[in-house]
Amino acid sequence: MAKKAYRKVAGGVVAARGFRCAGASGGLKTRPGALDVGIIVSDTPAVAAAMFTTNKFQAASVVLNREKIKERLTRGIVVNAGNANACTGRRGMADARRMTALAAKLAGVPAKTFLNASTGIIGRPLPMEKIEKGIRLAAASLGNTAKHGDDFSNAIMTTDTVKKTVAVEFMIGKTPVRIGGSCKGSGMIAPNMATMLCFLTTDAAISKPMLQKALQEAVGRTFNCITVDGDCSTNDTVAILANGAAGNVKITQLGAGWRAFRDALAHVAAELARKIVLDGEGATRFVEVRVVGAKTTSDAERVATKIANSPLVKCAINGGDPNWGRIVCAAGYAGAVVKPELTRLWINGVKLFAGGMPAKVTPSRLAACMKPKEIFIRLDLGIGKGEKRVWTCDFSREYVAINADYHT
Amino acid sequence: MAKKAYRKVAGGVVAARGFRCAGASGGLKTRPGALDVGIIVSDTPAVAAAMFTTNKFQAASVVLNREKIKERLTRGIVVNAGNANACTGRRGMADARRMTALAAKLAGVPAKTFLNASTGIIGRPLPMEKIEKGIRLAAASLGNTAKHGDDFSNAIMTTDTVKKTVAVEFMIGKTPVRIGGSCKGSGMIAPNMATMLCFLTTDAAISKPMLQKALQEAVGRTFNCITVDGDCSTNDTVAILANGAAGNVKITQLGAGWRAFRDALAHVAAELARKIVLDGEGATRFVEVRVVGAKTTSDAERVATKIANSPLVKCAINGGDPNWGRIVCAAGYAGAVVKPELTRLWINGVKLFAGGMPAKVTPSRLAACMKPKEIFIRLDLGIGKGEKRVWTCDFSREYVAINADYHT
Repeated sequence: MAKKAYRKVAGGVVAARGFRCAGASGGLKTRPGALDVGIIVSDTPAVAAAMFTTNKFQAASVVLNREKIKERLTRGIVVNAGNANACTGRRGMADARRMTALAAKLAGVPAKTFLNASTGIIGRPLPMEKIEKGIRLAAASLGNTAKHGDDFSNAIMTTDTVKKTVAVEFMIGKTPVRIGGSCKGSGMIAPNMATMLCFLTTDAAISKPMLQKALQEAVGRTFNCITVDGDCSTNDTVAILANGAAGNVKITQLGAGWRAFRDALAHVAAELARKIVLDGEGATRFVEVRVVGAKTTSDAERVATKIANSPLVKCAINGGDPNWGRIVCAAGYAGAVVKPELTRLWINGVKLFAGGMPAKVTPSRLAACMKPKEIFIRLDLGIGKGEKRVWTCDFSREYVAINADYHT
Repeated sequence: MAKKAYRKVAGGVVAARGFRCAGASGGLKTRPGALDVGIIVSDTPAVAAAMFTTNKFQAASVVLNREKIKERLTRGIVVNAGNANACTGRRGMADARRMTALAAKLAGVPAKTFLNASTGIIGRPLPMEKIEKGIRLAAASLGNTAKHGDDFSNAIMTTDTVKKTVAVEFMIGKTPVRIGGSCKGSGMIAPNMATMLCFLTTDAAISKPMLQKALQEAVGRTFNCITVDGDCSTNDTVAILANGAAGNVKITQLGAGWRAFRDALAHVAAELARKIVLDGEGATRFVEVRVVGAKTTSDAERVATKIANSPLVKCAINGGDPNWGRIVCAAGYAGAVVKPELTRLWINGVKLFAGGMPAKVTPSRLAACMKPKEIFIRLDLGIGKGEKRVWTCDFSREYVAINADYHT
């Protein structure tokens, strides 16, 4: 995928033409007045694509969306934070349907054209009175200013400490096209499981199959680097609406136009993924683990994941401590083909381990390599061509505080 | 395995007749005078059995012991804390050999009859001057009092906050026999990887093959419940010496005598494993995760491990928070066959989830189930007969503090 500079624009999910959104407070979050219900509406029928969690316990919204995403046209998405509506059985399904039906009705579009998503505590029924209050308030305040985009972003946050929104403009042929997005998520880039939601909008004219293909490639290279291997929550969802308002020649097959779109989408997704990592619960450092030379891609994934998820590695990075033995050790128990004498390790470009023993490095270089706020770990297994890149963050006292005190 | 009451006796690794031990300070630990080298010697030739880490990066001591354990007779073990002598290449192997040769020489026995073990930082050469100083001091102070046993236990500790030692007396036929042990380990029962070392001694008369079989069964039901599925360090070692000083009819085949021995050994191992869990770095609670009804044993292991290793679950337990959704969610991404509608969850006997939705439980019972210092999680997948029990602890701010500040 070519690296390009994209022109950033304001507005997040309403940067693209023909979209309105809002965030409102239904009272699901405990802080009075906190925004917790968000709505996105496309002024004209759009096509949608989405990817969902692979967790066996799927939230009601995910079950519902898997059906609704098959519809030819989509008009909007309604989201709540504070309650995941997961593990809630038949009642949860009915609540999810009521939630989308109300949002669709207030937006004046058919219920079947509305998607929904939820994030928050698992196993509690949705407080429908609060949900409905939030939906009514949000539907009454839809708009397309930057403030509207920010409100939507704020409404989908849980333990996130900052809202996460990006939008860019780029050219498809001679037509300027926009893609914008907003996401929430922090914990899951730590070892696992807190919900990641991402909502993208574009005014590109593109067919539904081409949109789905672009989304899959963009997510595979970005969000899937942070939500690793099925260690995902009950609610994880990435969805995109494309309404064609830009007026470009419609993308209906692979080619230059599709690639330009996919690259821009991957860029937006990468920016959002990076924001999630940097907002990891209690995170103080950004960490990239790149495993190369593995026998297979799945071996590379196993090793990269074990390193990225090792609390001991993450604590060492938090302490700024070049305790590379923990990295090598994590590689050793990943269940991959690993030969100590062929394995080489670098942290921020400093070679630390090769030939089965520590590399020669001065104590000052050793200490310095773990000091930056961005840590690049490169592990070459020296066996084959399998590669995997994973992004993560360090593990801090604050992570525990956040997750021990996030009470049900 | 029958549950029996065993008579506890003092002395740890020197509770059994015919063993001497010592702990001394070589200066490997930074605190002046801290014990960091330990030796166990059998007065007469003993047979030995051992189990080692499956990590691909094996410490020099592990590589060496895998050879030495094949010897017919064993006389002793020398251990150091503060340096793991792992990822140290040829020099590490030579150092491990020098360490055992010196200890054996000072004990007046052949080098090939001495085992060794190391624990501490990975990737640093052993400071041989300190090691040798510690070995000389320890060898000069061997004895069989409870104080000697305590010194040995203290000498093998790293981030452990308490020494861990157990010894029992039981009957084989009409002969009283003793098994004692000492272990170190804390971090690995958290998600993974800190070293677990366990040294056991017995005065039972038993053949080497019968000893190995008893050790494997005892470890499989105890230590393997805490060091799960290959998530083990470069140095993990469990070793036992049996010198026959009790004078029982020698155990050379399966039968009542062997079962009595194996049960007692499993009891000692369980007590030690429990002490490790309770001394988990920063741990405040003991947690048992029992998965039943899985399609296969390996499915049960996957699910139990994911739950036990989930930082979100462990943080919730630390906070005394009955956030059972995190447990169910972890089961959902374990890669096992899981059917939400068949899955049932109990915490400390309170049913929380069944039939795809929350069980009816009063808020006070819900809150109360997560309050005890011992948390028993039971997850029935309702599919097959696969079972697995895993012991772990909660995850606290102190865990991060310990591991961020444990500097190289």
